[in-house]
Parts: sequence; structure tokens; C-alpha cells
Amino acid sequence: MIYLDNSATTKPYSDVLDAYIKVSRDFFGNPSSLHPAGKQAERLLKQTREMAARLLNVKPAEILFTSGGTEGNNLAIKGTARRHKNRGKHLITTEAEHPSSFETFQELEREGFEVTWLPADETGTIKIEDLKAALRDDTILVSLIHVNNELGSVNPVVEAGEYLKKYPKIRFHVDHVQGIGKVPLRLTDAGIDFCTISGHKFHGVKGTGLLFAREGTVLSPLFSGGSQEWQMRAGTENPAGAAAMVKALRIHLEKSVSGNEKLNLITGGLIASLNDIRGIVVNTPEARAPHIVNFSVPGLKPEVLVQAYGEKGIYVSTKSACSSREPEPSRVLSACGFSREVAASGIRVSLSYDNTEEDIHTFLNYTKEIVPSLLEVAAK
Amino acid sequence: MIYLDNSATTKPYSDVLDAYIKVSRDFFGNPSSLHPAGKQAERLLKQTREMAARLLNVKPAEILFTSGGTEGNNLAIKGTARRHKNRGKHLITTEAEHPSSFETFQELEREGFEVTWLPADETGTIKIEDLKAALRDDTILVSLIHVNNELGSVNPVVEAGEYLKKYPKIRFHVDHVQGIGKVPLRLTDAGIDFCTISGHKFHGVKGTGLLFAREGTVLSPLFSGGSQEWQMRAGTENPAGAAAMVKALRIHLEKSVSGNEKLNLITGGLIASLNDIRGIVVNTPEARAPHIVNFSVPGLKPEVLVQAYGEKGIYVSTKSACSSREPEPSRVLSACGFSREVAASGIRVSLSYDNTEEDIHTFLNYTKEIVPSLLEVAAK
Repeated sequence: MIYLDNSATTKPYSDVLDAYIKVSRDFFGNPSSLHPAGKQAERLLKQTREMAARLLNVKPAEILFTSGGTEGNNLAIKGTARRHKNRGKHLITTEAEHPSSFETFQELEREGFEVTWLPADETGTIKIEDLKAALRDDTILVSLIHVNNELGSVNPVVEAGEYLKKYPKIRFHVDHVQGIGKVPLRLTDAGIDFCTISGHKFHGVKGTGLLFAREGTVLSPLFSGGSQEWQMRAGTENPAGAAAMVKALRIHLEKSVSGNEKLNLITGGLIASLNDIRGIVVNTPEARAPHIVNFSVPGLKPEVLVQAYGEKGIYVSTKSACSSREPEPSRVLSACGFSREVAASGIRVSLSYDNTEEDIHTFLNYTKEIVPSLLEVAAK
Repeated sequence: MIYLDNSATTKPYSDVLDAYIKVSRDFFGNPSSLHPAGKQAERLLKQTREMAARLLNVKPAEILFTSGGTEGNNLAIKGTARRHKNRGKHLITTEAEHPSSFETFQELEREGFEVTWLPADETGTIKIEDLKAALRDDTILVSLIHVNNELGSVNPVVEAGEYLKKYPKIRFHVDHVQGIGKVPLRLTDAGIDFCTISGHKFHGVKGTGLLFAREGTVLSPLFSGGSQEWQMRAGTENPAGAAAMVKALRIHLEKSVSGNEKLNLITGGLIASLNDIRGIVVNTPEARAPHIVNFSVPGLKPEVLVQAYGEKGIYVSTKSACSSREPEPSRVLSACGFSREVAASGIRVSLSYDNTEEDIHTFLNYTKEIVPSLLEVAAK
């Protein structure tokens, strides 16, 4: 199997699964329980939180464990909007967000909030001037995806954070799910209030995630109940899931040190080669994250191509997994101004640090063979 | 270790952990992905859902996987209230709910809903007449805890469900987290619309749960995003967590066949013996679930007793784990009309099918020794 769908999900590292099992077996107590089994679990969770904080260079009290990226985005966005609605009801995001942000803002529109949808261009990014122009007295939240999950483009979140420091009452949330490790992002003193990451995108286990919530921020919780996670996320904690995620994060960040350059070379070569294949247009812009390459074969249904690759043991995707069942052209590509033909035929290749040049070589060889032949069939 | 805090959490069965690992390793694809790795994960998740449905005697389309009991209660309650608020804004629950329901209703009161809090008496249960009297034209939801998590008392949810069939526009939710297996509950044609269970309460893994949502019901989601879980719970599915939970559910329900009678005998003997110890009052009523016994030692701080047991390797709890950090007397016992002294000194012993008579024998022997001696110290 040549797995090139790492932006949809990744295979958990075996060390990660070992950690999960060890904690589930030896630290099964409820961290809220007062007896030794509870206290051991609580201590382990505390250490896990401290480790996460060290890896992200933030404070342990700024780490909130969640069930994943969708929860993190929902919690940061709905939690801020509902908590601060008395301050104002204006929210800002972009047209090219992941469904877990996009749909959340649509839900908030139905609740009576007003949303400014910043346009993204063919580079998949917004213009910082557009953000500046959109700010209003009643703006309470700006939320940007860092690395676009379909295109691999990189939004100017550092610039945005710097600028938004002038507006201490506006909360700034970054969807860092695709960015973590791949496009390093400083969280301390960066003007970022909330930052979402998801465990299964970097070889952790599914059902785990983390929300960075800057000290001093508050959120209206999605889950009411016990006082876990700084009273912002009720429910019995999942120490095994958290420990597995943080172990994965450590390995992921270690690999990123040399991994990003390697990935960048591999995907750079891939883009150059794809550009040479007739019928293919590359959608990923020049300024990009190292691990995602998006291209289209106008005139070809992307499902057909995904299936053809699949038969050869090569796994790629159409758009985001969360929207892959919808028959419509990619909402993200359409929003970025790509033609309907291009938006309807996008293929995403997404790598992890474990992919090799050989993987891409095999992928390319097969692409050169299959794309012309499928185009020929489609033309008939 | 004699673990008698199974209502807080349970130790995962080794078969359950094996299932978790196998699925995480061999079916790691994103179930929404269109390639074979995605489709394999999707198929496995489908089979897991079907198995859950068979075990609960409901339809696969009525199973919604969640991250646990707190999420299930929040989703059913907030989801119904927000979805049907145009029909009416009156909700009914009880004063003796778990925090994940109790706090959720309090949150909904702040949102503008009106809540009738049915009183519970010293048996820990509501009177069906009180429920009937509380129903109004604008009532949209009734939510009852089935087995009380502190007292082990059993609310008349079957009677309530039967009665509520006359009101097809009122949704009926049951918090079945402590009841599952221990007090069997029929879900088909029982007038129950939503029913919450949590994986880690029956030797599954933490971070997993399930909400039964009767066919034809709709909920306003807590998580917006992708169209997973019948569009009521966005986010990448967790097939390993679901498979582990459903395996645990199968084992748990198998054990319940002979296990409940055994547990009932053991806890019956425990209650009789506790009644004979001077200074102890048993709070659990006669009609009760087989696995929970709550007693108080008025005049003694329950944390002191929990710690004394802990030093002997015996693990029990004060109130629910989700509220064990709060220094106040138990809200649930207070609501049921127990005196402040009793409510402030409650101890919960909660068994699983794996506890033995020997465990309880050891517990009792130590109780007979430690309670009088701690009372003596406290009296000084």
C-alpha cells in the first residue's frame, strides 16, 4: 500500500498504541476519583498535559483535551461567539475553511450572528488587507485555517495575529489541524487565543485532540457537567487517548526537524512532474505547506481516478474526507476561484514524514499511464 | 486492589483492548475516504453499528457514536431543546440527575428555556404522578436518569415512557449510563426517544459512548461539520473506540444474565451488614439496582474514609466522580431529602460483575474496624 491520504488520517505509530494500552491497563482510574487509582490517573494526565504544553511552548493550563479537530473548532468558535455575544455579534472567517469551521459559522449565522466571509484567491489564502478592512467595533472573533486542508496553501496567520494584538477584545482562533509540525507556528505571544489540533492527523489515535486556549480566555462549553478541563469541557477525561496523542505529537515534531525539508523536495518534484503531464493542472500554489499537493484532471470524475489508484494500492483523496461524500465540486476550490471543471476534478495527495521518494515515483509512473488512458475513455 | 468504584469507571477488559489495537492498526483509514483503506474502515464501523443495534434490539440507524456519557446527555438534551424550541420551551427533568444532565438543564434555563425540576424523595426516585402533573402544552422534552449514579435507585422510566406515548410531540430521554445491563431496559416501542450510554462504565475504553436516537427523531448537533453519524455528530469517526465499546457491551450483557442475581445477593448482604454497624446509615433504598450501595457515617468527612480505605487497597468513592472535587454535601442526596449531615458524608460502593463476595467480605471487615475508630477520633 502506498498511502498518500495523510491529511484525511494517518496510521498510528506502534509506540503510540503501546502508550494507549499501557495507560488504559495500568492507569484506568477516573482522574476525578479521590482514591489512589484515581490519583494515579490524575497525575498521569497532569504529566501528559505538561508534556503537551512543553512541546507547544505554552502553559499546561492552556491545554484543553478534546475528542478531535471538529470538536476543537466548534468549541473555540461557538464557545467564543456564545460567551461574548453581549460584546458584539460580528464574526470573521474565510470562504475556504474546513467543514468543521465552515458549518459552525453557518450555524452561528442561523443563531443571529453576522459573519464576514473573507474571500480566498487562487493561492488559497486571504489577503491581510481584507481582514483589516473587515474589522468592526462589534467584531468578537476572527477564525482562520492555517494550512488549507485541500490545497496546502498557508494563510498569513502570524501577520493576522500580530495585527490583532491591537484589538485585545477580539478573539483569534487558528485551525492548525493540517499545519501542526508541517508549518511551525509559534503560539506564545503571537496574538493567537485559540488553536485547534487533532491527534489522528499526526499518527495519534482517533477521538483525540487538543485546543490551546490562551490564559485568561473563557469559552461557553459545548458539554455542560463536571468541572473537567478547566470547566470548559465536561466529561470523564481520556488519559489513554491524551497520552497517545501527546506521544504522537512528540514523535511528529521530532521528525519535522529534518522531515519538512525532505517532504518539500519530494512534493516540489511531484508538482514539477505533474505539470508536465498533459491534461493535469496543479492547483496547489507556489507558497505552500510541504505535504499537500492538489491537482485536477478537467473532464475526469475524481472518484474514477481515486478508484483507479486504489486498485493499484495507491490511496489518494478527492477533497476533505469530511466532505468526500458530497457529489458537488469542491466548495474550497470553488471559493478560491477555480473554474467549475477544475473544482469538480480535484485530487489531493497528502504525505506524512514516512512517505518516500519511491512512493511518489510509483505514484507518478502510474499517473502518467492512467490519466491519458482515462481521459481517452472519457472523451469517447 | 479491591476496586469498588465501578460507577466512576471500570477497568477495560483485555479483549476490549485487543479489539481497540487491532482496529487502530489494521483499519486505520478514515471511514469517509473513498479508497480501499477508507472503505474497509467504513465497513467495520457499519458492522460495529449493526452489532450495537442487535445488542440493544434497535436499528443500526438509531445508533449514534459519541465520545461518552456527558456528550450523549448534552446532545440529547440541548439537541432536542434547541431543535424544537419553536414548538415550546418547557423542559422536565429531576432534581437528582448526574451533573452532565443537571448542568445542561441549568445552561438551557440561561438560554431562556423553562425547566420543571421534579422532586425525588428518599428512595431517590420521582413519582410518576408528579411527572404527569408537570406536562404542559409547551413541553418538548422529558429527561430522566434511569439508575441514580449515587444511590442506585431506579426511576420509573418504563412507566414514564408508556405514559408519554400519548404525547408524540414530547421527546423522552433516558440517562442509562448506570443502568445498562444492570437494570435491563427495553428500547423498542418503549416510548423512549433518546438513551445515553457510556463505554467506560462497562469495561470499554474512555472517550467512547453511544446515543440511541429513535428513528424519525432529529437533533440540533453540538458539533457542526461533516455529515458523519446521520448528520447529528460531525467529526472523523473513531472505529477503534466504537469497536472496543461494542465488544465490551457484548461481554457485559452476557455477564449480566447470571451476574445481576449474583450482584444482588452480594450487595443485599452488604446492606444488611452495614445496617448492623453502629454509626452507619444506609441511603440506598430497598428497590434498587444490583450494583450500587450508598451509606453515610454522619459526623465523618467522607474523604477521610475514602483515604483510609485507599490505604488498605480498597477503592470506593464519595459522590459521582464528576462532582467529587466539590466540597459541598452531595447535591443528589440533598435533593432526595437526606439531612445535611447524611448528604455530607455519603460513601458509594459500586460493583462490577467481576467483584466477588470475598471483596465485600474484606471491605466489611475493614469497615467494622475503621469506622468506629475514625468516629472516635472525630468525636475528640
